[in-house]
Amino acid sequence: MNKLTGWIFSLLVLLSANGFADDGYRLWLKYDLIKDVAKRDDYTRSAQFIVLKENSPILKSAAGELQMGLQGLLGKSIPIITSAGNRKGGIILTVDEVPNVDNQMLNSDGYRIFIKQANITISGKTDKSVLYGAFALLRQLQTGQPVRTISLASSPKIRYRLLNHWDNTNGTIERGYAGESLWKWYELPATIDPRYRDYARANASLGINGTVVNNVNASARFLTAEYIEKVAALANVFRPYGIRIYLSVYFPAPKTIGGLKTADPLDPEVRKWWADKTKEIYKVIPDFGGFLVKANSEGEPGPQDYGRNHADGANMLAAALAPYDGLVMWRAFVYKADPKADRFKAAYEEFTPLDGKFDKKVIVQVKNGPIDFQPREPFSPLFGNMPQTPLSIEVQITQEYTGFATHWVYEAPIFKECLETDTYSKGKKNLPGVAKSSGSTVANVIDGSLNGYELTAIAGVANTGSDRNWTGNPMAQANWYAFGRLAWDHTLSSENIAEEWVKMTLTTEPKAVATITNLMLKSREIYVNYNTPLGLSRPWSGVHFAPEPWQNRSSRPDWTAIYYHRADSAGLGFDRTATGSNALSQYSPEVQQKWNNPETCPLPYLLWFHHVSWTKKLSTGRTLWDELCTRFYTGADSVGWMQQQWAQVKPDVDPAIFADVSGRLITQYKEAIWWRDAWVLYLQEYARQPIPAPFKKPERTLDDVKGLVDIYQLR
Amino acid sequence: MNKLTGWIFSLLVLLSANGFADDGYRLWLKYDLIKDVAKRDDYTRSAQFIVLKENSPILKSAAGELQMGLQGLLGKSIPIITSAGNRKGGIILTVDEVPNVDNQMLNSDGYRIFIKQANITISGKTDKSVLYGAFALLRQLQTGQPVRTISLASSPKIRYRLLNHWDNTNGTIERGYAGESLWKWYELPATIDPRYRDYARANASLGINGTVVNNVNASARFLTAEYIEKVAALANVFRPYGIRIYLSVYFPAPKTIGGLKTADPLDPEVRKWWADKTKEIYKVIPDFGGFLVKANSEGEPGPQDYGRNHADGANMLAAALAPYDGLVMWRAFVYKADPKADRFKAAYEEFTPLDGKFDKKVIVQVKNGPIDFQPREPFSPLFGNMPQTPLSIEVQITQEYTGFATHWVYEAPIFKECLETDTYSKGKKNLPGVAKSSGSTVANVIDGSLNGYELTAIAGVANTGSDRNWTGNPMAQANWYAFGRLAWDHTLSSENIAEEWVKMTLTTEPKAVATITNLMLKSREIYVNYNTPLGLSRPWSGVHFAPEPWQNRSSRPDWTAIYYHRADSAGLGFDRTATGSNALSQYSPEVQQKWNNPETCPLPYLLWFHHVSWTKKLSTGRTLWDELCTRFYTGADSVGWMQQQWAQVKPDVDPAIFADVSGRLITQYKEAIWWRDAWVLYLQEYARQPIPAPFKKPERTLDDVKGLVDIYQLR
Repeated sequence: MNKLTGWIFSLLVLLSANGFADDGYRLWLKYDLIKDVAKRDDYTRSAQFIVLKENSPILKSAAGELQMGLQGLLGKSIPIITSAGNRKGGIILTVDEVPNVDNQMLNSDGYRIFIKQANITISGKTDKSVLYGAFALLRQLQTGQPVRTISLASSPKIRYRLLNHWDNTNGTIERGYAGESLWKWYELPATIDPRYRDYARANASLGINGTVVNNVNASARFLTAEYIEKVAALANVFRPYGIRIYLSVYFPAPKTIGGLKTADPLDPEVRKWWADKTKEIYKVIPDFGGFLVKANSEGEPGPQDYGRNHADGANMLAAALAPYDGLVMWRAFVYKADPKADRFKAAYEEFTPLDGKFDKKVIVQVKNGPIDFQPREPFSPLFGNMPQTPLSIEVQITQEYTGFATHWVYEAPIFKECLETDTYSKGKKNLPGVAKSSGSTVANVIDGSLNGYELTAIAGVANTGSDRNWTGNPMAQANWYAFGRLAWDHTLSSENIAEEWVKMTLTTEPKAVATITNLMLKSREIYVNYNTPLGLSRPWSGVHFAPEPWQNRSSRPDWTAIYYHRADSAGLGFDRTATGSNALSQYSPEVQQKWNNPETCPLPYLLWFHHVSWTKKLSTGRTLWDELCTRFYTGADSVGWMQQQWAQVKPDVDPAIFADVSGRLITQYKEAIWWRDAWVLYLQEYARQPIPAPFKKPERTLDDVKGLVDIYQLR
Repeated sequence: MNKLTGWIFSLLVLLSANGFADDGYRLWLKYDLIKDVAKRDDYTRSAQFIVLKENSPILKSAAGELQMGLQGLLGKSIPIITSAGNRKGGIILTVDEVPNVDNQMLNSDGYRIFIKQANITISGKTDKSVLYGAFALLRQLQTGQPVRTISLASSPKIRYRLLNHWDNTNGTIERGYAGESLWKWYELPATIDPRYRDYARANASLGINGTVVNNVNASARFLTAEYIEKVAALANVFRPYGIRIYLSVYFPAPKTIGGLKTADPLDPEVRKWWADKTKEIYKVIPDFGGFLVKANSEGEPGPQDYGRNHADGANMLAAALAPYDGLVMWRAFVYKADPKADRFKAAYEEFTPLDGKFDKKVIVQVKNGPIDFQPREPFSPLFGNMPQTPLSIEVQITQEYTGFATHWVYEAPIFKECLETDTYSKGKKNLPGVAKSSGSTVANVIDGSLNGYELTAIAGVANTGSDRNWTGNPMAQANWYAFGRLAWDHTLSSENIAEEWVKMTLTTEPKAVATITNLMLKSREIYVNYNTPLGLSRPWSGVHFAPEPWQNRSSRPDWTAIYYHRADSAGLGFDRTATGSNALSQYSPEVQQKWNNPETCPLPYLLWFHHVSWTKKLSTGRTLWDELCTRFYTGADSVGWMQQQWAQVKPDVDPAIFADVSGRLITQYKEAIWWRDAWVLYLQEYARQPIPAPFKKPERTLDDVKGLVDIYQLR
């Protein structure tokens, strides 16, 4: 064995000794050698070198990522040089600050990629935009698009694109299913986990430009000098990737750590405390993003404790932020423990009277639906009804109600369904160029185009954790990816995003790409079918894992399951028409008209708004009871279909990932049947009808199923 | 570029794109190419092939590990064949069941490695012993020992060598500082994390042969059919590595999941429930190890709730295990919330009256010290005082009281200090061949040699978690390693174990090995000096992180800090002589004699047993106050020395690990000063004396330091 082959051999041995199966750590930034030699050669001719003219930490990130990515994809060394000279066939990174005919359509984060003098130029008005362009070019190669005559331009439609981490000081994550928090607070600021940078890279690749690192059920720790220093160390890692850090704040912090007697937002001492604290933060984090607040919600204190309202609280923090480029994100997720009220209506009732009363640095953050991240919800009636107040949308990437890290649910359709719904908040009139809707979609509320908001934002509750593959279920990486892509451009289709992700992450084999994309697109509806079909919701107790539609005891009525489905001998569903809670009246007349009549209300929302008789014949031709059974049974059976489909891609995906997902599908199938059995056995006690053919009655009893749930309630 | 070099290049690019810094995942099983060519060539001549004659899952693990390890270390392909024929220069794995002159000294886990007909033979009476031998051979190569004329024989001195995981059902770990639990209960049994196997490999490499996978504050979930299936899936992964699975059990499980009205251990229905449950477990886990029990301790229920004693409880479980090869490990960690009592004495008082009353399948598991895993404790007086009851020792690998994952504390000296202490339980008489002690060391109690126990066991509370490097602090891997090595052979020295670990894990450069080994050996005493010098203990509140010697309020007196140090204007320390709690009387007269007199009591235990005047002159020539200050100050300063020493090994260790440890040392230094300041400022209020020269008074006040601690008590 000569020296050279010996060396190759050592490398191979090294690779095998280290078990080079795909552990999912690299996410969609894989940069494995492109197998198609012709395509690789073609790309190689356009990527001989990288020119970095200017210099900044963010531009260095862009050039470094491009270099690493291209070297991996193309299998050759690619130098970074400061000037192209007369060379052709390279990539030029350049910031183009002065407005001109080429960049006039771009906003400050937007990029252009085009050919100029036989080089690919990536350009934008800021160094951040060039970073986004660099990732976009890599994505072109990863998804097999041509680059020789590339001409792309893209600007994000929403300005603040954030992840919200519900991470606690002790390392746990509220509703986290992928390990512990990424942030090692006990080690910071001195020890910097290399993973922080990879987190920033992944977000930057999607255009995510902000992150709230701590839980909205916030600890005041983060406002102490001890912790600000730790947060600053994280901010230093994120900054070269264009990511700003935000903090959730504990409203009574002036009392708990400031030693004041009150946290009244109109108290001068309190206001001074927040101003001083904000100054202290900006001193060490000059690009600090601002505050996220959960106040007077689910036991969290807030301005109402002092007879003030949400605007008083938010505006006080806005005043503290006045000298700086920072925001207040004030959450509208509120509901009182009123046994007579409809939780659905609470946010609207508390917030619409405050429209126009918020400071210009405040944005009100609204969950997509009126309740709480259900597998399917109608849109929150706040959207369209706060024309003078910038609203951001909060969606949940982590699968609190969609099967933790076990069930495969691709969420882009959930996000899209809300964003594309028409609020009709400006009536029926179509906006110019918009054919199918009035133009008042939730997306157009959020992106500012409808009401001319200057502040626009979108927040996703992160599904990341310390698991090696970041998200527990490898397929859940797609939800992080989809959130980021939609935050940039909500007009992208769920299908295109899925396809991109599959090609970048799993395989580029066309048949496998099609199979997996199809699975992803169907996955949410399958889940809804066995979990909460026809507009059912929240069949959980506190654990949010296993079915408990019978759950009827809690410290609050709206924390029981029966509050939501209202099953009785007559029928099923929550009457939110005028004969019931009348929550429907919070929507515009056009929306009410669509949903008010059980005959015309779309089936997916039927039981959200109507109490329907068991024997009522639906548009499917089946009675409510038969339709429910059909959904529960076919939903569970569909997981079997998912298993079969997944089995077909075995030759085309990494064996470790294949095995991992196969295992999760086995569990999902078992749990889907559990959901089915729990629902049909429980509802049957009210419906008093047999399981319709061809479905077979569950072999176990309702008590058996209840016993299974109890296991998960044990300490 | 020709094809071959192109291929090499791709590999290199791949390596660099994947960031091939050492992330610590491989632990001490690194198998990187041996750099010394002469040595490598020499080893290569003895490792041309591996012969596996017999076949079993465990033997396959042995051969597979050898192959992977040797290929990595030697950089060449090594075949596994079924017969050597006439070939020389290979490694033969063989089980040698029939007792003969060569293997007669081996116990069933013991191995021999020797040269026979110019091949290396690894042999033992069982397939497990061959597995241990395979790892031993790899260790020889990793630590640079010669193998050409190898002749080794080793049998473990203790039969059951276990890790105890305090892992909860929700993925958190009680006293875990390295991420979440390794066990993904929601994914099991269908999804098998590849990491389970690497966990088993690491343990098998040390000879660890059992693992208790759930917290002693146990959930009854683990005894449900749903969870037994999950546990069985783990057991299937561990079995080929000779590791048996055990469960912590919740004593009232017959009530909580069995539906019985009582959990009285003498109730026939309860006994039947346990017998049936045990049968159910063995049906799916035929090599199930048995039960670990924390009962009537810190709020956990137990037999005393029914007027029964520990033996009644343990013997009931032993009866359930009677048909099987399984054990009951009954913990002796008990203490009553009695304000007048000395917690130190509780376990002895409850357990010694039960000596001889336990079933032969029961072993009583005793923490090394009488209180709770302090940085330094005298040995538990149960050791030597239960001659008719097999006792196992429980030590804590996870750093609950030794600085979490931040402080660098190498624990072998803690474990050794206890194991080597002489209990004098058989009086002064030396055992044959033992010179310096009476032979009644704690180790000789534990390994059964003193009292002829048939059952012998040792348990370490694991420091593993989902962090990529398993233990958070990379240096804490050494504590897992040291526990395993001492569990096999408690006569190994702390120094030799440290050296082995450094060579296998960090570097083989002799100077760096010496520097790091020295750091490790000094690290525990340095920690004790700034944390709990001279026999101080438990200066914590519930959080166990930051200093709170002033902590004086709790639901129980023995959960305050002042209970332990008893500072007053006269002096400091807990009088456990006849004038005080008289806990010393629980030791043998020889031990009492050594520790009873404050003049002769070794300084490390002084304040454990004596209330000493501030002005008392100690054997060092300094007063108590001056000595305390000297320890606190030099302890903290020594962390600066650790930083300097660590800086010197920079060229010789992986850059990622170097940076990680450097960061942690910065934090450790800061926190060491915090400990120092907290203690001296607090004790000064009682001692009313100045900080002695040359030490400088802390710049901050006691209130400042108290405020710092408060941060860590905030939600």
